[in-house]
Amino acid sequence: MAGIVVQNIERAAAAVIAGLAAAGVATVHEAQGRIGLLASRLRPIFPGARIAGSAVTISAPPGDNWMLHVAIEQLQPGDVLVLAPTSPCEDGYFGDLLATSAQARGCAGLVIDAGVRDVRDLQAMNFPVWSRAVFAQGTIKATLGSVNVPIVCAGAAIDAGDVIVADDDGVCVVRRADAPSVLAEAQAREAREVAKQARLAAGELGLDIYDMRGTLAARGLKYV
Amino acid sequence: MAGIVVQNIERAAAAVIAGLAAAGVATVHEAQGRIGLLASRLRPIFPGARIAGSAVTISAPPGDNWMLHVAIEQLQPGDVLVLAPTSPCEDGYFGDLLATSAQARGCAGLVIDAGVRDVRDLQAMNFPVWSRAVFAQGTIKATLGSVNVPIVCAGAAIDAGDVIVADDDGVCVVRRADAPSVLAEAQAREAREVAKQARLAAGELGLDIYDMRGTLAARGLKYV
Amino acid sequence: MAGIVVQNIERAAAAVIAGLAAAGVATVHEAQGRIGLLASRLRPIFPGARIAGSAVTISAPPGDNWMLHVAIEQLQPGDVLVLAPTSPCEDGYFGDLLATSAQARGCAGLVIDAGVRDVRDLQAMNFPVWSRAVFAQGTIKATLGSVNVPIVCAGAAIDAGDVIVADDDGVCVVRRADAPSVLAEAQAREAREVAKQARLAAGELGLDIYDMRGTLAARGLKYV
Amino acid sequence: MAGIVVQNIERAAAAVIAGLAAAGVATVHEAQGRIGLLASRLRPIFPGARIAGSAVTISAPPGDNWMLHVAIEQLQPGDVLVLAPTSPCEDGYFGDLLATSAQARGCAGLVIDAGVRDVRDLQAMNFPVWSRAVFAQGTIKATLGSVNVPIVCAGAAIDAGDVIVADDDGVCVVRRADAPSVLAEAQAREAREVAKQARLAAGELGLDIYDMRGTLAARGLKYV
Amino acid sequence: MAGIVVQNIERAAAAVIAGLAAAGVATVHEAQGRIGLLASRLRPIFPGARIAGSAVTISAPPGDNWMLHVAIEQLQPGDVLVLAPTSPCEDGYFGDLLATSAQARGCAGLVIDAGVRDVRDLQAMNFPVWSRAVFAQGTIKATLGSVNVPIVCAGAAIDAGDVIVADDDGVCVVRRADAPSVLAEAQAREAREVAKQARLAAGELGLDIYDMRGTLAARGLKYV
Amino acid sequence: MAGIVVQNIERAAAAVIAGLAAAGVATVHEAQGRIGLLASRLRPIFPGARIAGSAVTISAPPGDNWMLHVAIEQLQPGDVLVLAPTSPCEDGYFGDLLATSAQARGCAGLVIDAGVRDVRDLQAMNFPVWSRAVFAQGTIKATLGSVNVPIVCAGAAIDAGDVIVADDDGVCVVRRADAPSVLAEAQAREAREVAKQARLAAGELGLDIYDMRGTLAARGLKYV
Repeated sequence: MAGIVVQNIERAAAAVIAGLAAAGVATVHEAQGRIGLLASRLRPIFPGARIAGSAVTISAPPGDNWMLHVAIEQLQPGDVLVLAPTSPCEDGYFGDLLATSAQARGCAGLVIDAGVRDVRDLQAMNFPVWSRAVFAQGTIKATLGSVNVPIVCAGAAIDAGDVIVADDDGVCVVRRADAPSVLAEAQAREAREVAKQARLAAGELGLDIYDMRGTLAARGLKYV
Repeated sequence: MAGIVVQNIERAAAAVIAGLAAAGVATVHEAQGRIGLLASRLRPIFPGARIAGSAVTISAPPGDNWMLHVAIEQLQPGDVLVLAPTSPCEDGYFGDLLATSAQARGCAGLVIDAGVRDVRDLQAMNFPVWSRAVFAQGTIKATLGSVNVPIVCAGAAIDAGDVIVADDDGVCVVRRADAPSVLAEAQAREAREVAKQARLAAGELGLDIYDMRGTLAARGLKYV
Repeated sequence: MAGIVVQNIERAAAAVIAGLAAAGVATVHEAQGRIGLLASRLRPIFPGARIAGSAVTISAPPGDNWMLHVAIEQLQPGDVLVLAPTSPCEDGYFGDLLATSAQARGCAGLVIDAGVRDVRDLQAMNFPVWSRAVFAQGTIKATLGSVNVPIVCAGAAIDAGDVIVADDDGVCVVRRADAPSVLAEAQAREAREVAKQARLAAGELGLDIYDMRGTLAARGLKYV
Repeated sequence: MAGIVVQNIERAAAAVIAGLAAAGVATVHEAQGRIGLLASRLRPIFPGARIAGSAVTISAPPGDNWMLHVAIEQLQPGDVLVLAPTSPCEDGYFGDLLATSAQARGCAGLVIDAGVRDVRDLQAMNFPVWSRAVFAQGTIKATLGSVNVPIVCAGAAIDAGDVIVADDDGVCVVRRADAPSVLAEAQAREAREVAKQARLAAGELGLDIYDMRGTLAARGLKYV
Repeated sequence: MAGIVVQNIERAAAAVIAGLAAAGVATVHEAQGRIGLLASRLRPIFPGARIAGSAVTISAPPGDNWMLHVAIEQLQPGDVLVLAPTSPCEDGYFGDLLATSAQARGCAGLVIDAGVRDVRDLQAMNFPVWSRAVFAQGTIKATLGSVNVPIVCAGAAIDAGDVIVADDDGVCVVRRADAPSVLAEAQAREAREVAKQARLAAGELGLDIYDMRGTLAARGLKYV
Repeated sequence: MAGIVVQNIERAAAAVIAGLAAAGVATVHEAQGRIGLLASRLRPIFPGARIAGSAVTISAPPGDNWMLHVAIEQLQPGDVLVLAPTSPCEDGYFGDLLATSAQARGCAGLVIDAGVRDVRDLQAMNFPVWSRAVFAQGTIKATLGSVNVPIVCAGAAIDAGDVIVADDDGVCVVRRADAPSVLAEAQAREAREVAKQARLAAGELGLDIYDMRGTLAARGLKYV
């Protein structure tokens, strides 16, 4: 089944992608009904990055990073590389050379359910990565994988062109077709939260703002 | 058994709590006979925080953060929220809204054997958290837990009002009744270490300062 | 078998060690044929450190840091302490007092397949550590281990006097006898990469620079 | 997005399913190009079971087994229940009562990326389960999930009606549409292996049967 | 704090203990409100054992099994040894000699959040153990711990004399004072389940037996 | 560095190897000073096997089992295959075909810090394996490794010709040169234990047999 490169993928509108980046992972995840999170083992290699972009997906054999070179050619500015190994692997598929190449093509970052290396250089370049490991173990270029095929990355199903949102909370995927409506709901949610946040900051309690006292009593909560 | 909120808990004296914060986790742990550490899976979401406070304990169902709202009402300034799920869970129970609310009540921080989210906001607010995961997974509000009952959090037994000490080394609990004597021993220990540190910095060896050479030889250590 | 301290170990030349530090873990690992990495569970306690030094090895019982005192006496300026427990352990073997002592002897850092504590102090002292855990759990001084004997640390076989290279990517060991040739190959590799990096930064593709298109086609890669 | 039950799903032919069960996980996985394995954390609760069946998929909240009751109504004889929690969870979703109910409907077994309990009873009933944990932790019935929607279970994407193959080696999914061709390839593969197995049993070497000596020499393998 | 042996502990009535053993872990856990489970990392070293007994608790240093000898003297027939190391450890604290000694005193089994060894001998002796690891790593006898003090074992708080219930599903603790009422509830629960099991076995659905259809519809479950 | 096959290795005497198998892992580990255990993550794929044999070592790339074919040619009757991947990997390197081939050459078993598959067949053939995973994931034959070179397997350094002892407790390595003396000590140890076991079985306490009461009192143990 491996050995396929899908060249023309559809992407969400740039404004939608930018809006999702601004909303961030936690809000987007809530806005789309609490789905789409990648497993918490994916962590940023440095703090502070907030990105969103269209997924260029990579299915790669364990310990073989050949398909990254293939995938980089498929990048358009703002895209996010998303790599899932075909069996669990923490080898360092990606380092400063590949990051230089990806960044030159406008790549916004990498999400990888495996390892990366040269992390100091990547931070200096401000090339963000979310990975399961930092590990210098080298990889080979011997076996085909595929690019822009559907993958499962860190427990989430991802199609090429889906929107990847990533920040210090982790990584979330939004189906391309759902992106506009998820953005609308995310922005509505943020608007609703502004008022609540002000009331909470003033010392008002969630118990009152959300009117929970009656329900809690009905369920049998006892104060002693 | 769930569904209880204990409203009036006793706390250690503020000066004792402040002293324990200054001493830090490693010293306090040693001073009380090497007990009370929470498991190393609890890590700070940002470096540099050093706190101590009285535990407001929360026993919560997996994936259900309802009791956090209940617990926040029980906070007094300087308290620390301590949440243990009733079965293993890494969902994100706590984010910027709850942190805003807790901070408005004077909460010093959160210790949670589960996940948190909005970690960039929490750092911007300087609201410290020690958690087992950063994970945006949302939680529900459907099932009762309890507040200020005895819990086991990350392997340590904690009663409401016990003193929680947390810093970059992790988290330690001091029984409320023991807090004054533990502080005294911690401060004595620190005083003893000042002199030793100066001698070690001058190049003197622990082998000599602690007079270990004879014991080592008696045990059979051989230099070759 | 325990209870041995080897006093006079051979070390690689200082210039070679310095060169390996400058090359860094990923390059050194590649330069010596992709061997010698320690497991990815060893992580730096603070970012940014880059060191290399001759290994002073320690085989220590679980939860017993006595041999660290013995090892510190064996340090020469620039050496790196490398500790492997004889059974898996994450206790905090090492903190600010031992770091003060080691630093006074010129120690460049610690690599430990166990825990450390006082990490804020260690960072303030700029004493780098790569460890599997940060954990304040205290240790005892009751049982002999050995110093400067062959050990296996985090999955890598290490002899006293081997060169340890450590940075944000992790830790790598270079056999003492191989150090000069590995350095030469690492520097050659870096030289080769400079040109490639410039071409990649200019937007040229790895597919072309490394002439991969033919091979990929021959293996059956299909663009659709 | 939760709260959907798809009632009429298509299934592969019974003879195809039976053939895949007989071929077993390792052969089926190879026959379809080394894809479709669920993560190795799923293990059988007792040895010796070999099943295949059409997936009735369940997406369930953490710690909430309500949807299992809903799913059981959708079972047809020979089907396999496949449950993925929406966030990581090892609670015991399934025990003897649910197994009795499922077995009464002809269910062939359960694949669950969470926990089960009453495992002694399940073995006595000969109801096979592949799970990530054995854990008695009870679950609630408070929140909707979905049945027969696409899920990701233990890292594999599964649609309702896909064929699940499970034995002592783990669990593999075969896309419904691919099942006949995968079976054909699996049987061809088994036929090819019979002859090889006989030659290997007679002491002939894989090096010779597969004619590897030349390739190994060409790659530079040296005998010393 | 270590160095204490509490000699006279109270125990639950033998009939109550026997009743809890017969009910088993899952039922007992449910009967007492879904509390008291030890973490799922504790697994039986061989299948089929079902025991209950009064806890003789042991707090032991990492890699030091001295206190097991002390604890064995405190055993009365039917008791269960429960060992928690003071820091995480998987060394083999217990093997055939200690099992022989414990069995000679009437010990019903061992629950240990660490390792054991000689597991083939233990199975031949029919001495059941629930442990986090099987590991031959030897331990020393150098440092005091305590016997029959409160401990936290695999995440559960246990006092000496509490009732330990263990079977293939894992381990559960019942507070000594609660044991009679928990048994009564467990037996009532089992009685209730007999009828349900018969109905389920006859093919009736949980959806109907538990009258769930209305609630599901009210929550918005849609059949498509 | 890869690409080497060492053809003539020295082996320990058959009688010594047989004696070590009879002594078993726990006794051998103790007899050689508590060294040489492989990590507890290696578990037998079926219970009851007890073997010892000379190590034919394999260093293999991740996900590539080519070198197993090469290694099988180097087997002599009674040898044990020992495979360490060059980076962490749980793919299924070994199944029924390779086992047939290895068994035809007299191989006593396999120790592998990776995965295996066809475990039901392997049990039927009575071919014992100690592995870190059971996983059907297929491997490729594309990259050279080495045979009979020094390796680190599951944390233990192993040279070709060292004696591997494996049973239900795990795996231990004995240096070839040490094998006769380790066997002698193991047998002496077993002889000493026979008498102790009889006294313990008769109800005598370890506290008395090992004369511990005085030491415990001197250390401060208090009975209350």
